[in-house]
Amino acid sequence: MSAYEDLCGLARERAILSTTAAILGWDQETHLPAAAVPYRARQLSTLSGKIHALSTSDQWRERLEGAEENPSGDPVEAANLREFRHHFDRATKLPRELVERASEAASLAKAAWAEARENAHFPTFAPHLDTLLSIAREKAECWGYADEPYDAVLENYERGARTSEVDAVFSKLRKPISEIARAAVARSAAVPADALHGSYPVAAQKTLNREIAESLGFDFEAGRIDTVTHPFCTHLGPHDTRLTTRYDEADFTSSLFGVMHEAGHGLYDQGLPEDHHGLPSGDAISLGIHESQSRLWENHVGRSRPFWQRWLPRAAELFPSLAAISLDDFLGAINRAEFSCIRVDADEATYDLHILLRFSLERRMLNGDLAVEDIPAAWNAEFEELFGFVPPDDSHGCLQDIHWSMGGLGYFATYSLGNLNAAQLFATAMQDAPVAAGFARADYLPLLAWMRDRVHTPGSTLLPQDLMKAATGAGTHPEPYLAHLRERFLAGAPAATA
Amino acid sequence: MSAYEDLCGLARERAILSTTAAILGWDQETHLPAAAVPYRARQLSTLSGKIHALSTSDQWRERLEGAEENPSGDPVEAANLREFRHHFDRATKLPRELVERASEAASLAKAAWAEARENAHFPTFAPHLDTLLSIAREKAECWGYADEPYDAVLENYERGARTSEVDAVFSKLRKPISEIARAAVARSAAVPADALHGSYPVAAQKTLNREIAESLGFDFEAGRIDTVTHPFCTHLGPHDTRLTTRYDEADFTSSLFGVMHEAGHGLYDQGLPEDHHGLPSGDAISLGIHESQSRLWENHVGRSRPFWQRWLPRAAELFPSLAAISLDDFLGAINRAEFSCIRVDADEATYDLHILLRFSLERRMLNGDLAVEDIPAAWNAEFEELFGFVPPDDSHGCLQDIHWSMGGLGYFATYSLGNLNAAQLFATAMQDAPVAAGFARADYLPLLAWMRDRVHTPGSTLLPQDLMKAATGAGTHPEPYLAHLRERFLAGAPAATA
Repeated sequence: MSAYEDLCGLARERAILSTTAAILGWDQETHLPAAAVPYRARQLSTLSGKIHALSTSDQWRERLEGAEENPSGDPVEAANLREFRHHFDRATKLPRELVERASEAASLAKAAWAEARENAHFPTFAPHLDTLLSIAREKAECWGYADEPYDAVLENYERGARTSEVDAVFSKLRKPISEIARAAVARSAAVPADALHGSYPVAAQKTLNREIAESLGFDFEAGRIDTVTHPFCTHLGPHDTRLTTRYDEADFTSSLFGVMHEAGHGLYDQGLPEDHHGLPSGDAISLGIHESQSRLWENHVGRSRPFWQRWLPRAAELFPSLAAISLDDFLGAINRAEFSCIRVDADEATYDLHILLRFSLERRMLNGDLAVEDIPAAWNAEFEELFGFVPPDDSHGCLQDIHWSMGGLGYFATYSLGNLNAAQLFATAMQDAPVAAGFARADYLPLLAWMRDRVHTPGSTLLPQDLMKAATGAGTHPEPYLAHLRERFLAGAPAATA
Repeated sequence: MSAYEDLCGLARERAILSTTAAILGWDQETHLPAAAVPYRARQLSTLSGKIHALSTSDQWRERLEGAEENPSGDPVEAANLREFRHHFDRATKLPRELVERASEAASLAKAAWAEARENAHFPTFAPHLDTLLSIAREKAECWGYADEPYDAVLENYERGARTSEVDAVFSKLRKPISEIARAAVARSAAVPADALHGSYPVAAQKTLNREIAESLGFDFEAGRIDTVTHPFCTHLGPHDTRLTTRYDEADFTSSLFGVMHEAGHGLYDQGLPEDHHGLPSGDAISLGIHESQSRLWENHVGRSRPFWQRWLPRAAELFPSLAAISLDDFLGAINRAEFSCIRVDADEATYDLHILLRFSLERRMLNGDLAVEDIPAAWNAEFEELFGFVPPDDSHGCLQDIHWSMGGLGYFATYSLGNLNAAQLFATAMQDAPVAAGFARADYLPLLAWMRDRVHTPGSTLLPQDLMKAATGAGTHPEPYLAHLRERFLAGAPAATA
């Protein structure tokens, strides 16, 4: 066996451990008895320790160096070695002491954040956030970065991304999205907030969700849907992709769009090449690409007219109260826009404003341009500029998200990158006649096949921007997304008033 | 740290791996998508390999020897060292080649058995059984035994048991149980087989099962009940004990007695001392003791008059058709006896006859006194002697159980040992006034406290027969069980006719 094959063997062994940890994590969210949580934490930390030890072992280093010295010339091998090297260097550049300190700080911070949010009292969380920022800066120095420390943390979630490039794209979104959002909100004033309020039994919601997920191509022989408090999608190994959702008996669209979103993640995972499981070539490349798939199915497909031409009659069979609602009114209701303080409740028209705010603050926080005690004021000032009002308290402002408390700086940007990528991939795919024809009749298998080919099959062989260029002819840029938002929220509307 | 503490540390590390494997196993039975089965097998075999490597490592041996050389005098430590030594020797006495051959033979045999049972064609399975018997004999020679090879396999399931001792007890059961069974079956002729046949919605069954399991003391903060095809109970770590059941909408007693049986196992697991998790002192001692707990709650409690005095009215609230049935008729129906070919369908009066048959055949098979090709004839001859008729084919005879195909020789005896132990423990517990008073008013917490103290808390510090002596004053013997069967199936009946 070559050194490369040996290295792949180690990577597949690591994948067995990491998928095992993922099963324990899934079980914790879905089934774990309350009293068993502490032991589950011990099981998970033991597995993490084994995974880290293997990933940074001399054995790993030797095989990696051996493989690099004798490349076969195969491009997939070259891509895998690029990724193996990247992740090995990232893992080994951090001193053990720093990793342990970070883990302890995050677990203390999470508890403090929960208390701070509960009481809308930022000072409870502030010293922890300060510590987490110091640690993130230390890590950034260990990892190194091109232009600024924020590059190093962004890299955790978006492989190869530069802060300056993301900023250049986001800067072009700020004004037009603000305008579209204001117009969309103004137009939605005519749509009652409770237009779809009704009685939707969970069993019927499950039936509809499953039929729709199947129609998108989600394979239930290789996946499932379960019920949780905080929905997610997890890939537990080849042929084992699990979506989760929660049900609101007064609003079936909540679980349905949740399932379509998670199914988008799941379709990516189910489309990764099974033979490459455990290797970078069998792994998703970034959150910004992953989110492109969830947003594609949730928004471009799930909130479109052809989709509901097909599915509203079926929904009305399951939920008789829908029979009285016209397709136009239904589409108006599911695309209703409204300014809200809370990111996770935001609609498609206003969502990115929440991200632009966070990206801007995070970057200044990490680079040392914004002191922790000034965060609430900075948040509220920028929020007011974007949304036109100030949150009632910090629980509805800078304390609302869990991400910072977990040390997850750099994560938020990938949500908007996902939106941009989704629109750009979708627009390109729709230039393909069979994809467009399928879309028009709510047959999504051609669209899925297009995504399989351009987005899923490459795994991590292409970096995100190379993948976008190969799939669409250009790196991530704002135009397709802005065009989509204008089409959805402004077309046929009275002249935008803002 | 002492060598003993170091050894305990290794044992706790092993427990993290083995509970992790148990979670993967539970998930496989309850949730795993069909297409993911092969990868799950790889995950499980990787974990098994790591567990075996750790359990037989030089590190383990050195710490064990070190601990044995410097005993502290603590009796729990001494018991743990006794068990650690026993299991280390058992694990290291088998050559790796034999372990791998056994594993491969069992997986081939399982498939052949399924096909043979499907077609009622013993010759399909016979060569595999022959191989498994040779392997079991080889293992017995590696392990060593006191009197006969069967001792060595029995030891896998019933710590410290001798075949001759089990045989001495079983021999005393054969004639009286045959007589009781015939009388019980004769008396049951007057009870219609469909007396309880009705419509029992699953949701209401779940409600009743949960209320009853809670009333026995099962802690749902540290456990749960899920639905499966083949019910079981599994202990996934401290505070995580999971029961499973299946539902028959025409017969609520099927899931209820299943849950009470599994809850009996679960109560034992929940009662093991948490501080000793991962050590023998925190582990169940044998299947014969484990089964005593499941049979106790299923049969001694669940099929008793005081239990249904308390619970029949509640069941009738949930299932209105029961309101028309008197307590006497209900008890007659749930204690109806009938001869059947299939062990898993057998009632309390006839169950042990199935075990006596298997024990007798297995012993002769393993010791070389019964050739594989002669098994069907030997089975049918002994079956006819015990039950008075011959099974229609081998699928209803010697092919019905999965155990042999998994190499599980020696397992069956523990079912009847469990019945005997249950009756003996129950009879002793009922000599305690608060236990008896609680039982009479369907308050089972005193009975549970008694079992916690005598059976659960010792973990594996006492060998099964020592535990029975400490708890009841005598090793396992037939009288309490026979007295129980006579009381249940003959009391108040016309003079037994057989």
